[in-house]
Amino acid sequence: LNKVEELENYFSRTLLDRKSEKRTNSMWLSMKQIHPDTVYILFSDLSPLVTLSGQQPEVRLCRLGYVHIQDYLTNNDKATLIFLGVDLGSKRELVNDNMGEDTKEKDEDGCIAWFALGIDAISAEEFKQRHEDCYFLHPPMPALLQLKEKEAGVVAQARSVLAWHSRYKFCPTCGSATKIEEGGYKRVCLNEDCPSLQGVHNTSYPRVDPVVIMQVLHPDGNKCLLGRQKRFPPGMFTCLAGFIEPGETIEDAVRREVEEESGVKVGNVQYISCQPWPMPSSLMIGCLAVALTTEIKVDKNEIEDARWFSKEQVIDVLSKGNQQAFFVPPSRAIAHQLIKYWIGMNSNL
Amino acid sequence: LNKVEELENYFSRTLLDRKSEKRTNSMWLSMKQIHPDTVYILFSDLSPLVTLSGQQPEVRLCRLGYVHIQDYLTNNDKATLIFLGVDLGSKRELVNDNMGEDTKEKDEDGCIAWFALGIDAISAEEFKQRHEDCYFLHPPMPALLQLKEKEAGVVAQARSVLAWHSRYKFCPTCGSATKIEEGGYKRVCLNEDCPSLQGVHNTSYPRVDPVVIMQVLHPDGNKCLLGRQKRFPPGMFTCLAGFIEPGETIEDAVRREVEEESGVKVGNVQYISCQPWPMPSSLMIGCLAVALTTEIKVDKNEIEDARWFSKEQVIDVLSKGNQQAFFVPPSRAIAHQLIKYWIGMNSNL
Ligand SMILES: Nc1ncnc2c1ncn2[C@@H]1O[C@H](COP(=O)(O)O)[C@@H](O)[C@H]1O
Ligand SMILES: Nc1ncnc2c1ncn2[C@@H]1O[C@H](COP(=O)(O)O)[C@@H](O)[C@H]1O
Repeated sequence: LNKVEELENYFSRTLLDRKSEKRTNSMWLSMKQIHPDTVYILFSDLSPLVTLSGQQPEVRLCRLGYVHIQDYLTNNDKATLIFLGVDLGSKRELVNDNMGEDTKEKDEDGCIAWFALGIDAISAEEFKQRHEDCYFLHPPMPALLQLKEKEAGVVAQARSVLAWHSRYKFCPTCGSATKIEEGGYKRVCLNEDCPSLQGVHNTSYPRVDPVVIMQVLHPDGNKCLLGRQKRFPPGMFTCLAGFIEPGETIEDAVRREVEEESGVKVGNVQYISCQPWPMPSSLMIGCLAVALTTEIKVDKNEIEDARWFSKEQVIDVLSKGNQQAFFVPPSRAIAHQLIKYWIGMNSNL
Repeated sequence: LNKVEELENYFSRTLLDRKSEKRTNSMWLSMKQIHPDTVYILFSDLSPLVTLSGQQPEVRLCRLGYVHIQDYLTNNDKATLIFLGVDLGSKRELVNDNMGEDTKEKDEDGCIAWFALGIDAISAEEFKQRHEDCYFLHPPMPALLQLKEKEAGVVAQARSVLAWHSRYKFCPTCGSATKIEEGGYKRVCLNEDCPSLQGVHNTSYPRVDPVVIMQVLHPDGNKCLLGRQKRFPPGMFTCLAGFIEPGETIEDAVRREVEEESGVKVGNVQYISCQPWPMPSSLMIGCLAVALTTEIKVDKNEIEDARWFSKEQVIDVLSKGNQQAFFVPPSRAIAHQLIKYWIGMNSNL
C-alpha cells in the first residue's frame, strides 16, 4: 500500500507525542515548566544548543533542566517558550518505576514534558560562558543534518515555530503587538477592535509552506532532470522544486514549476513521500513526474542550469560519491531519497 | 501510475496559465490592464460577481472589461488588483485570427490577460446599482460550488490571494504598512529598516495552509470512520481533517489528527488526491488511512460525533442520497471523492 514508510525521513521521526490538547491547559503547562524531569532545549537565533559527546564524538542536543533556564523564563521579552510535547517513552517507564510509591504527587502523570526556549543574543552569550562544552549550531545548514534522526524531528518542530514567532510578532491584520498563547502555538492580537479576534483566522497560527520537489523522468524512462541554483556549491545538482501557490494542487504545482524553470512539459505526477524542512517552515512534498517533452530552456532567474542525467550517471554518483563530475544532496535530504527511489525502481513508469 | 487524475477536482481545473514570469514585468502588466480584450473578475468582501445566464439559468462569473472597472483602478486604497494569468486558449486563437494583419501592434502578444479586482463595500453597492443583472455570491459557501469547474479554479486562485491581502495588510515582522508588488503576489514592508527587506521571507508571499483530510478504514476493510462538527447541517458526516503542523509529515499529521479527534490509532497512510479550498487558502491533502484500533473516544472540543459506517450504508447514501439517516458532502468536495474512491475500490488495502 504505502511507499512512504520505505523512504528514510529525516526531520520527521521524533521522540515526542505533541499532546496538543495540553496547550490550552495552562495549569498543566505551569506545573510541567517547573518539574525537575522536564527537558528544555535552548535556541539562539534559531540555532539549537548542542554538545559533542561519546567516544566517537556525535553532535547531540543539550537537554537542560528547569534549573538551567529558570532565569530566562521570568523575562518574556527576551525568551520565547514552546511546549513541544511529552516523551513518547516516558509515561510507561515512569509508571513502572513509581508504582505504589506514596510520595507521588496527585497531579503527577508520569509524562516527561519537553519545551523549546528561544533566548536573545546577550543571554545566549552569557549561557555559553557558563557552559563551555555547549555551542549553538550555526549556521544551521548543513549543520542541522548532523543531528540524530529523532533529535532532528524535535528540532524541526521547535525551529519552525520559533521562526514563526521571530517573524510574526505583529498582527498582520492591524499592525498591533500580539501575545503568545496555547503553549506557543498561537499569537493573539492585543488590539481589542482587531477583526482577527472575531472568528478563527490563520494569522493566529504558525505557518507551514507547502513546496513541491520532483524527480522528473525523461519520456524514455532512463534519464532524469536535475538542476542547480547559483548559490549551490559547485557541481551540485538536485531535483527541481518550488512553492505551491494559492488555488493550486500538488500536481498542478509540479507541472507549472518544471515548465517555468526548465521549459519541460510534464504529464503524470505521482506523490512519493514528504519531509518537513525547518528553513524556516516548509513541507517538502516529493513526487515523481513524467516528462512529455525533452527540450530544456532554463529560466536563468530561477536556476543556473538543468540537464538530463542518465540512470548510469546517477547510480555512479550515488555509489562512488564525490569522485564524480557532479554530486547530489546528502542522504538526509528528500531530493536524495527521491533520486534513490527512482534508481531502485525496477518497473517502467 | 497516477490515481490523482481519476478524481474530479473542483477548484483546481482552470482556464488560465498563471504566467508568473510576467508578475515582475510592470510594463507588460500596465499594457494588459488597459487592453480591450483583458478580462476582469470583480470581488466584494471576497465574494465574486456573478450573473445567471442561459436557458437553464446557470451561475457564471461576470467577465468585465477595462471600461467597466477603470474608475476603481485609480484608487489603490479601495481596490486590490491581482494578475491571474492568461487564457489558456487565447494565444493560439488570436494568432490564427490576426495572422498577417498589419494593424497589429508590436507589443501585442495575443494573450488575453485575466485580473481579479477586489473593491470595497461602497464601490460594490454602487456597481450593483448600475448593473442589475449581476450580484455578489454571498455567503461564499456553499454558493461557490455552483460555479462551473473551470471558473471555480479561477475563483479559488483569486479568492485565496485576495483573502491574504485582506488579512495581511501590515508587516508581521515590524507592524508597519506594506505595499503590493508583483501583480498582487507579494507584499513589501514600507519600513526601510525592517529585517523582512533583507533576504527572502515568507512574510512577503501569500499563505497556503496544508490540511490533511482522510478516509479512515476499519481494520476489517469494510467500514469507514466519519465524523461531524457541531456547526455542520444536521445529519451530515464527513472525513476527519486537520491542519498540518510545523515539523510534521502528511502521514504523521493524519495519524495525530485521527487519534486526537476520535481516539482511533492509524497505521498505513496513502496519498490519493488533493484539492485547493479557498476558505481562505487551504490545500486539502486527501488520504486513505488504515486503522489499527476500533474503539472511538470523541474529543468533544473538536468534533461532536464519530462513527464507523459500513460500506453498504455508504453506498446507499451515495446512490440514494438524502432519503438516508445521514448524508455526506456534495460531489465537488474532496471528502465526497475520497469516500467514493474507497467504495469504488475492489482491492483489499
Ligand atoms: N492555519 C490555521 N488556520 C485556522 N485554524 C488553525 C490553523 N492552524 C491550526 N488551527 C486550529 O484549527 C482549528 C480550526 O480547525 P477547523 O475546525 O478544522 O477549521 C482552530 O480553532 C485552530 O485551533
Ligand atoms: N512562502 C514563500 N517563502 C519564500 N519564498 C517564496 C514563497 N512563496 C513564493 N516564494 C518565491 O520563491 C522564491 C524563493 O524560492 P527558492 O529559491 O526555492 O527558495 C522567492 O524569491 C519568492 O519569489
